[in-house]
Amino acid sequence: MNFQQKLDKAIKKNDSFLCIGLDSAREEIPRSDLDIRSDLVLSFNKEIIDATYDLVSCYKLNIAFYEAYGIEGLTSLKKTIEYLKNRYPEIPIILDAKRGDIGNTARFYAQAVFDYWDADAVTLTIFTGKEGIEPFLKYQDKFSFLYLRSSNKGAADFQDIDVGGLPFFQAMAEKVSTWQEENYGIIASATFPRELAVLRQIFPGRIFLVPGIGAQEGALGKTVEAGLNSEKSGLIIHSARSIIYAGAGRDFAKKARIAADKLKEEINEIRYAR
Amino acid sequence: MNFQQKLDKAIKKNDSFLCIGLDSAREEIPRSDLDIRSDLVLSFNKEIIDATYDLVSCYKLNIAFYEAYGIEGLTSLKKTIEYLKNRYPEIPIILDAKRGDIGNTARFYAQAVFDYWDADAVTLTIFTGKEGIEPFLKYQDKFSFLYLRSSNKGAADFQDIDVGGLPFFQAMAEKVSTWQEENYGIIASATFPRELAVLRQIFPGRIFLVPGIGAQEGALGKTVEAGLNSEKSGLIIHSARSIIYAGAGRDFAKKARIAADKLKEEINEIRYAR
Repeated sequence: MNFQQKLDKAIKKNDSFLCIGLDSAREEIPRSDLDIRSDLVLSFNKEIIDATYDLVSCYKLNIAFYEAYGIEGLTSLKKTIEYLKNRYPEIPIILDAKRGDIGNTARFYAQAVFDYWDADAVTLTIFTGKEGIEPFLKYQDKFSFLYLRSSNKGAADFQDIDVGGLPFFQAMAEKVSTWQEENYGIIASATFPRELAVLRQIFPGRIFLVPGIGAQEGALGKTVEAGLNSEKSGLIIHSARSIIYAGAGRDFAKKARIAADKLKEEINEIRYAR
Repeated sequence: MNFQQKLDKAIKKNDSFLCIGLDSAREEIPRSDLDIRSDLVLSFNKEIIDATYDLVSCYKLNIAFYEAYGIEGLTSLKKTIEYLKNRYPEIPIILDAKRGDIGNTARFYAQAVFDYWDADAVTLTIFTGKEGIEPFLKYQDKFSFLYLRSSNKGAADFQDIDVGGLPFFQAMAEKVSTWQEENYGIIASATFPRELAVLRQIFPGRIFLVPGIGAQEGALGKTVEAGLNSEKSGLIIHSARSIIYAGAGRDFAKKARIAADKLKEEINEIRYAR
């Protein structure tokens, strides 16, 4: 089963577009009631996963939060992915890595992401052009989300540079849209619903990964309206901090479940009302 | 001593602009005569370093070639950096990571690169705008090379999109050039000497890191001519495969030294003839 099929199945089974970001930085996670003797981050992730696996379409792991703690942090990442693959093999895993380099280097990043880390999908920056993306697309069962609009306030610095009346991200998108491979999707952002709508017009059928809900305060209604494809699907709404850090006490996993369930239902309300 | 001072000192001491890329992929390095019982990549790197340390301005390690082999590969990376820091503390280390994400994530990548991996400098993609660069620039003794022109044939895909008569990379560069921080430099490419010259005009005083010589067949003469600043300096010429894989037999380190010395001297000939 390839990533798209796996994702589609999880969306249907859990009736959810929600993607929980396991952006679990060692210094930020609540420490109460966790078995910190072995691996704090892994223990935390396991509890969050066990409490939310039936509410999500997928999990996303941002490798930065693990790499910051070096070999130890990356070992937690590896073990978290192993846990997910063993316990919940039906839930797809996105490794948020924003990798982007020339083809010869990209080959090695693709090997890292898909062969070693064993992710089902990855996020990529596309500055080097299609050559830098191809080594990832060659993994036919895997999937690549291309970074076309970032969620930060300063996204406009380069993404909105005027290209003959269009912002740069749109010119970039028009070019990407000529790529025929089936196994890529788009990263747009909930903090820019107008730009999200533009991207959806350019890519009517592609899967969209949309961060920016929650801590980053994107507007959910506008995001779902703008992000759904013509079949009212093709959308993954990502949230991390507002779910995994919903509680800081012993009941942090329970609180995370409540926050996840609430967001999932809010998304569904908008989606089914459409 | 900050990165710029350290680099300047190494350039003067070794009379060299050469930066050797330790892009040592486990499957590509020659295996003869190495102690593979412990750590093949580390053993290989040590021999290359010991044979070339007095010919270089700095070493660059591309993390992709290590991450491809997971925790084991990244352990070789860590140990290589520790070896350099202990044995040759006067030689600066660039971690080639092309990281690029929003500010909150960039904080963690900066922590990884500078605190954990202990690099003196890093390479970054700048798609998210200045917000994504600031967490790196805050490390005042460290240094960031910003990816403004890639070395691959398909670089033009996005980098040359027309922005009111200018290619996009140039519009991007004009914007970057308004950033006042002192601790960033520019990645341009030897495979595009015309674009390199344009970037040098926009950034007359910045340090340039220039890949693309050797395996990628950039023209050395044009590169040095276009890349030098007004003080005939500020240039790091990077080469990896054509040096570290110069030989495949027992004498691979000796062959690497010969190749490195040859390139160093060729650069100096052009530089001093100017």
